[in-house]
Amino acid sequence: VRVVTFLSDYGLSDEFVGVCHGVIVRRCPDAHVIDIGHEVPRHDIQAGALMLAAAVPFMPPAVHLAIVDPGVGAVGPCQRRAIAVAATSPGHLLVGPDNGLLAPAIAALGGAAHAIDIGSSSERLQPTSATFHGRDLFAPVAGALAAGAPLAELGEALDTGTLLQLQLTSAELAGEELRARVLALDRFGNIATDASEHQLAALAPRSGAPLIVSTGGLDHRARLGATFADVPAGELVVLIDARRAVTLAVNHGSAAASLGLAVGDPVTVRSP
Amino acid sequence: VRVVTFLSDYGLSDEFVGVCHGVIVRRCPDAHVIDIGHEVPRHDIQAGALMLAAAVPFMPPAVHLAIVDPGVGAVGPCQRRAIAVAATSPGHLLVGPDNGLLAPAIAALGGAAHAIDIGSSSERLQPTSATFHGRDLFAPVAGALAAGAPLAELGEALDTGTLLQLQLTSAELAGEELRARVLALDRFGNIATDASEHQLAALAPRSGAPLIVSTGGLDHRARLGATFADVPAGELVVLIDARRAVTLAVNHGSAAASLGLAVGDPVTVRSP
Amino acid sequence: VRVVTFLSDYGLSDEFVGVCHGVIVRRCPDAHVIDIGHEVPRHDIQAGALMLAAAVPFMPPAVHLAIVDPGVGAVGPCQRRAIAVAATSPGHLLVGPDNGLLAPAIAALGGAAHAIDIGSSSERLQPTSATFHGRDLFAPVAGALAAGAPLAELGEALDTGTLLQLQLTSAELAGEELRARVLALDRFGNIATDASEHQLAALAPRSGAPLIVSTGGLDHRARLGATFADVPAGELVVLIDARRAVTLAVNHGSAAASLGLAVGDPVTVRSP
Repeated sequence: VRVVTFLSDYGLSDEFVGVCHGVIVRRCPDAHVIDIGHEVPRHDIQAGALMLAAAVPFMPPAVHLAIVDPGVGAVGPCQRRAIAVAATSPGHLLVGPDNGLLAPAIAALGGAAHAIDIGSSSERLQPTSATFHGRDLFAPVAGALAAGAPLAELGEALDTGTLLQLQLTSAELAGEELRARVLALDRFGNIATDASEHQLAALAPRSGAPLIVSTGGLDHRARLGATFADVPAGELVVLIDARRAVTLAVNHGSAAASLGLAVGDPVTVRSP
Repeated sequence: VRVVTFLSDYGLSDEFVGVCHGVIVRRCPDAHVIDIGHEVPRHDIQAGALMLAAAVPFMPPAVHLAIVDPGVGAVGPCQRRAIAVAATSPGHLLVGPDNGLLAPAIAALGGAAHAIDIGSSSERLQPTSATFHGRDLFAPVAGALAAGAPLAELGEALDTGTLLQLQLTSAELAGEELRARVLALDRFGNIATDASEHQLAALAPRSGAPLIVSTGGLDHRARLGATFADVPAGELVVLIDARRAVTLAVNHGSAAASLGLAVGDPVTVRSP
Repeated sequence: VRVVTFLSDYGLSDEFVGVCHGVIVRRCPDAHVIDIGHEVPRHDIQAGALMLAAAVPFMPPAVHLAIVDPGVGAVGPCQRRAIAVAATSPGHLLVGPDNGLLAPAIAALGGAAHAIDIGSSSERLQPTSATFHGRDLFAPVAGALAAGAPLAELGEALDTGTLLQLQLTSAELAGEELRARVLALDRFGNIATDASEHQLAALAPRSGAPLIVSTGGLDHRARLGATFADVPAGELVVLIDARRAVTLAVNHGSAAASLGLAVGDPVTVRSP
């Protein structure tokens, strides 16, 4: 058995995800495909990249197939490369577009050891559609890698230093104030920020300490905690979430709804 | 191959479900994970418990992992236990929070033969997050059980009599009137009630018999049937559904929309 | 390992899909179940049939289980048959209701070689519910076929000529105007029409050619292209999609939203 993980923005209402499963299993009959998620907002490379990077450290050695690909099929100077990458962490391979989607996951797996351009891979399905590279290019290469095909034989070698990186914001600690931005929201309305554990610890070292969370000129009372239940229902807690991000949450509620925040919005945290 | 079934309220828009799959497969490489469903309304223990109990009788012997866990990470007197249970039905094990979620499924599998507290299990991932016990506690224990680890070695023995039960309402047959409550809605708008087959049979023994369904002071004409198509399109039928619950349905329509009912609402059924 | 693909309109919010997986795996422990999709709009046989037909050519030899079944449980003259079909393409079997849902997929697999009526199959679960034939009839037969049971032993032989066909519209090329209808929409808002590649080529043989798309008396400027990025963001492109349908798309947008079109609506394409 060889594990293939799969993340995309294809959604589950069409046959796209199932078709990619079929292509993988046709190439590698004993593949075990794990869906990381397919509801990444359409074309949202950052959201997909953060999901993938959060997932891969908990996966067994696997081929990680990830597709969020607004530039699919474009040719000429705007063309993004299609890549397969061997991570330094043994047994972990990644396949997808070279648009930053894979970069945080590669970093989480110790960096890139080898990379190839698979745009003209012999594993491509023929004819290759211009609009569904998941089916015709990425899934076939992922299936071939799962079946044990050597990376070097599936495309042309690339300099790993040329792989596109993802630009993420970083919070600043300015005096007594942590100036952060919203990095991601989950379906429970928890708000992950771009602040680090160290920055939060510098601001509020003691669990239970009161904090002020400011958005759009409004101040909200919160507490530093370890979990949702460290504050009464309906109240705001600042905690380190399971991805190790500094996160704003409302116990039994939605911080995103309470604070009216979306990805990219600024938010500051300070002691009262 | 060892089957693990998996139910949660994690939804499919984040990586939570896929990460749990990865943790299971890392611990038990030949696990076959069957998703029962992950769209349980957030924190709705009753809805999750009914779904799980409806599913397990049709599953092969398996580890049933179920997570709807509003109390995750709480410490002190409010802390819920985390448990693993061997059912009387051979080969069926259940893993999840001890908040009533597992109770109807355990009953459907013949009751609990053995139970352990896994809160300090050696299988936990380290560090153990305070907010994602699915990944760090429940999935690892489920994977270990799937891999054949003996139940007794994964936690401390519990008295099965102390497992938390789920409190469900029951309909009353008062004279000619069946006073019920809505137990669950499915995505087709079919309304499962807390009435029993026996109660319905006492009221209307003959298929095709006319019935009056009353909600909020309004009477609706219905018929006793075996399936949706036993009434014309758009009309109301009272039937025994696939979970063996007394159910209100509209042929080619939505009874929930027609009657304006939600879980917990009262509804009465009588002969005209 | 034997592959079972699975498509339905059951959605993912209830346990229906997971229960069918369980029934299949109980009958065939080494089955590998691939979900093609379960968000087919309720009772929409055409949408399900087109999804299934688009998927099967990319699947390995498999049992294809498909359930969109508005007539479930009806008896008497309105009763639809339940069928299993061996396609001409080796190793491909199909299981589902005989209501047209399977027909385009059977055609895509070279036509029907053998067919049986499984309505009284000995594989049925007992008791057989009147409302959930997926669990009690179709999944058990699919599991038996995956386990290697001979088709002829699972039901009564049928004349393949009596299988219900799906009636689909076809575009007309009238002089300089291609009069089409909307066949399907995907979640990205791409609009598949019932026009053929040949018809489009007769109208506009040259990539990049300007086209006029008319709906509801309004003209919209478009271009013939091979992929979304062949037009600037926000503009309309007419292309052959991955299902090989003539498709209207908006680069980085939704053609369905821009044009206000739904399945079945007329749309015409002509040169300016």
